[in-house]
Formats: sequence, structure tokens, C-alpha cells
Amino acid sequence: MIDLLDRVRQGHARSIARVITQVENDPQAAETAVTYLYPFTGRAHIIGITGAPGSGKSTLVNELAKVFRQRDQLVGIIAVDPSSPFSGGALLGDRVRMRDLSGDKGIFIRSMASRGTLGGLSQATAAAIKVLDAGGFDVILVETVGAGQAEVDIASAAHTTLVIEAPGMGDDIQSIKAGILEIADVLVVNKADRPGAARTARSLKMMLELGHNLRVNHHGRLMQVSGVNEDETEVGWRIPVKETVAVAGTGVSDLVDAIIAHRVYLQASGEWAFREMARSRREVEQLLHSRMMTRLEITVPRTNHDKLITAVAERKTDPYTAVAELFAQLTS
Amino acid sequence: MIDLLDRVRQGHARSIARVITQVENDPQAAETAVTYLYPFTGRAHIIGITGAPGSGKSTLVNELAKVFRQRDQLVGIIAVDPSSPFSGGALLGDRVRMRDLSGDKGIFIRSMASRGTLGGLSQATAAAIKVLDAGGFDVILVETVGAGQAEVDIASAAHTTLVIEAPGMGDDIQSIKAGILEIADVLVVNKADRPGAARTARSLKMMLELGHNLRVNHHGRLMQVSGVNEDETEVGWRIPVKETVAVAGTGVSDLVDAIIAHRVYLQASGEWAFREMARSRREVEQLLHSRMMTRLEITVPRTNHDKLITAVAERKTDPYTAVAELFAQLTS
Repeated sequence: MIDLLDRVRQGHARSIARVITQVENDPQAAETAVTYLYPFTGRAHIIGITGAPGSGKSTLVNELAKVFRQRDQLVGIIAVDPSSPFSGGALLGDRVRMRDLSGDKGIFIRSMASRGTLGGLSQATAAAIKVLDAGGFDVILVETVGAGQAEVDIASAAHTTLVIEAPGMGDDIQSIKAGILEIADVLVVNKADRPGAARTARSLKMMLELGHNLRVNHHGRLMQVSGVNEDETEVGWRIPVKETVAVAGTGVSDLVDAIIAHRVYLQASGEWAFREMARSRREVEQLLHSRMMTRLEITVPRTNHDKLITAVAERKTDPYTAVAELFAQLTS
Repeated sequence: MIDLLDRVRQGHARSIARVITQVENDPQAAETAVTYLYPFTGRAHIIGITGAPGSGKSTLVNELAKVFRQRDQLVGIIAVDPSSPFSGGALLGDRVRMRDLSGDKGIFIRSMASRGTLGGLSQATAAAIKVLDAGGFDVILVETVGAGQAEVDIASAAHTTLVIEAPGMGDDIQSIKAGILEIADVLVVNKADRPGAARTARSLKMMLELGHNLRVNHHGRLMQVSGVNEDETEVGWRIPVKETVAVAGTGVSDLVDAIIAHRVYLQASGEWAFREMARSRREVEQLLHSRMMTRLEITVPRTNHDKLITAVAERKTDPYTAVAELFAQLTS
């Protein structure tokens, strides 16, 4: 495997693809790959892109890739697709993309589909990001669908998170409710040639300007505070609202400028290091959980474990008592 | 606290509200409450309701509550809102609801907002469900926003999961991509008086009828299989597609019939017990993780822990090596 991993470091596309497949399917391979490649990571700018279905995310990601390529950056794209097992969504998206971007060796595209395991997708995505990072890609675009814990997890792996909106996608309150705005570093109103685009951009800006009781927290992200300490005058990053028409390429170069400005801000302010800390903490916590579950399988016989779960299901014991028992066996 | 928990068991609304607030904010209170109340749970029919913003979920939940009340059922509503910290979405939704349903002592409404902690919201929701269950509510409607891991987690706590669609909410492939269809026990096309409703219902039904390579798995849920074993003739639950106009109450009684039919199916087929097992397993796993994290805080000095995280962030060690070290200290 070390030969293969060395070819990954040289940016060999087929080796990269092979290793990503391995880390996706086999936790042991993920451990080997990440342990070997990890010292060579940390160079890439990881950009998360999220937003509701119908916002034109995929097209925008393609256009972003093209603009980064024009600026001589190597671009990796990871499309994280928690798709239905019967949609084939990942494959479909891939094929459309391949047609558009294929032939450019400076772009690597990969879809990752949900395996249905708790934390499995974000762990596999984190590993794939590292493979591309070690493979020398300058920019890694991580696209996710929808709004949920998966998006928040993936945003926490990104340096810069874009949230894509489009006009006329339900009322504004609903879109805020979806709860992805607070992870945004850059807001994008795509399909900006459609009716209502100006209104959507305006209401997003207004919301941001409600900022007298908002603050950028130590991760460089927006949070609400109950009172504003007037001594603190540092403003941090001002989240821009950018308008694009991805199908025509309009506004995309301007958006790339904003993304690069965010990277410059992160590095100048020390936020880059803070986000790396947060990312590392979360990753270690997730791996610790996986290791504990593996240890549990080894130390507690499956029949004992199942008996305890059955007792909980049948209300013969409660979950806390069951956990105390398992934990005692685990650490004895 | 035991007095308070006894009043919960008697269905005393203010005590229920107080205990839910406690379990939301204090893991120790959650442990006390769940340990005490757990033997009295397991009676309620837990119904998860999910779907994209704009599908009219909240209105439909209100109408479902009214129909269940007409059938003499006590109804608890938990609106899980992973909302932005600056939207106040949860409160807004609550106020609209209160106006509509207040005055009926047979309905208890509660919003739960994201605390931003990994697994925190689903653990708090699971505890709140138990409080209502022990409080004698016959039906517990758990409403979630969006499509993501949170929804999948919450669906796994439900006996019956409704996925709400509405016509004209972006193309069908996108809505499938959102990946919530595979958790559905009942599909609902709400706003069925709008143009495109018939088309949406038709395409959902078509998708379900693609079923020659689909199967209901042992949780009673849809999954794709590569080949169909012709010996297995058992069909399991056939996911119905129901049309409603929630604002007018149209189709809601019919939907309630479908929900009750699903409960009858679950109990007759033994799936109810299977789902309780799956729920118990997941809950025990989550609590085990929390307990491990607590133990970690106690056994590994914070400075050592932080030093290790910093080393990972700075690429001086890799996450797997860091985890091995922490785990050794944890179990030594």
C-alpha cells in the first residue's frame, strides 16, 4: 500500500481514486492512509458548499472549479451525497459533471454517498479530503446537499463555507429556519437573473446587518450575543452576500475573489489555526468513538450485549443502567 | 425531583414542561428523569414528521393533532428546530401554534432548538419523548426541519415516519437526492390543491413501484437489493402516498387512518419490537459515547488533551496516533 500512497503524493489521479475507494469502504485502510499521508496535508484551502436542493449548487461548483483552474490552481471536488439508495443521485451528478469538466487533468471529481452509518459519511469525507490535500490539490470543493447535521459536520472540516440560496425557494423565514446560515462565511444568491433575486439578497444583507447583537465567535463564525461589550471593537470577518448566475458564469470570478479574501483573513487573523484546532478536536473525538465501539465488540460478547439491548427495549432496564454495565465491562 | 416526576406520570402539564427544560439543559437531570420514568414508557405511538421547508409541515402537524384529539387521543407535539441562533424560529412557530391549538388540555406543545452539540439535540429529543410517553400521551408528533443526519436520527426514534412533499418544490430528482425518502413509512403530498400536485404524487408512486428491486428491510423500511429472491413472497408494508391540503384540513383524517394502519402493521408483524430494539441500541450507543467523553475529561488532564489536539492541528502527529494515546490513558 505504501507504493500506492507515494503515488497519491505525486498527484497520480488513478491512485488517488483507488485510495479514496479504500478509505470509504475499510476503516483499516483509512487508518493506514491517513497515518501515512497526514504529515503532507494542511496545504489545501478546503471550501464547503451547501444550500437547498434547487439552488444550483452543482453548476456553481463546476464554474468555481473553472475559475480556480484559470488561476492555475489544482482543484479537487468532493460531492457528498446523502442520497436515497434508490436514486442513483451520486452517479447521475457525476456523469453530468464529467461531461463538463473532463479532459482537464487539473480537476479531480469524486462523489461520496451515504453509507447510512452514524458519522460514517463525515469520517469518509474527512479522509478523502486528506487524500486530495496530500495529493497536491490547492483547492478542495466539498459540496453537500440539504441542511442538517451532515452539513454542519462537513462545514467544520472546511476553512471557508459557502451557503447558496436562490430566489423564490420558499419564504425567507423558512430558509433561515433551515439553520445553515450560521455556518456561512460567504452567502451566495445564485440564479440572480431570476425575479426576486434582489429581494433575497436584500433580506440576507438585512439579517446580517441586524449585527448589533451578533458577533463573530472565535471560530470566525456568526453567533448571537445577549449584550454587546462596547470595549470590543474588533469586527472580524464581514460575511459578504454575492450574486451569481452560475449557468452563465456571471459573478463567479467575483465570488472566487471573496473566497480568497476569506482565506487571507483566516491566515492574517489566526482563525486558520483556530479552525484547524476545532477540526482536529472533532476528528479525534469521532475516532475515539469508533475505537470504543470496536473495543466493545471485542470485550463484550455479542450475546451479552444483545441481551442488554433487549432488556432496554422491553423496559426491563433503562438505558443509563445498561450503559453503566457495558462501560464497566469495557474499562475493566 | 421525585415528586416532580410523579406529577409528570399524572400528566401534569407544567411539571412536564419543567422536566423537559431540565433534561434539555442538564445531562444529570436527564439521567435522573429517564431512569425514573423509563419503566412507564413504551405505550405512546411516536410519529416522526419531516420534509423540506415550505412543504407546510407545521400546519399539517397541527391538523393531525386536531384529528387525533377528535379520536380521543392525548397528543404531544415536539418541534425539533435546528434553527439559526438569530432566527428565533422555534419561538415564532410556537406562538403561531399556541394561537391555533391553545385551550385544549389534551395537547402539549414543545419546541426544542439545536444546542449545537454533537448528538445533543437528538439526545434531548429522545429524553423529551420519554417524558411525554410516561406522562400518558397516546400520540407523540415529532416534527423536524430539513433533510440530514438529524432527521435520520429522529426518524430512528419514531415508530412511523411521515415524509412531506409539496408540488413545485424543485425538480423530483433533487427532492429524492435530499435522501429522506428511504426513511418514510407514509409519503404525503401536501398543498395538493396546487398545480403539479398530481404529477408529484404520480412520480412518488412510480418510484415506489420501481419496487421490483426494492425491499422492505427488517426495520420495515425500504432498501435496494441487487437481486430479488423469488422465494420470498412476503411484501411487508406498502408505503402509501397520501394527498392533503393541510390549511383546509382536507385528507387529514385519511392520513390519520394510514398512520394507524401502520401502527397495526408494526404490531401484527413484530416490527414494533424490532424498531424498539434498533432505538434502544442507538440510544445506548449514544449514551456510551457521552459517558466516555465525561470519563476522558476526568482521567486525562485538560492540558495534556489540548497539547495532543494542537499536535494534530500542526501535523506533528496524526489523529489515529493521538487517539491511540488518549484511549490508552482512558482505559488504563
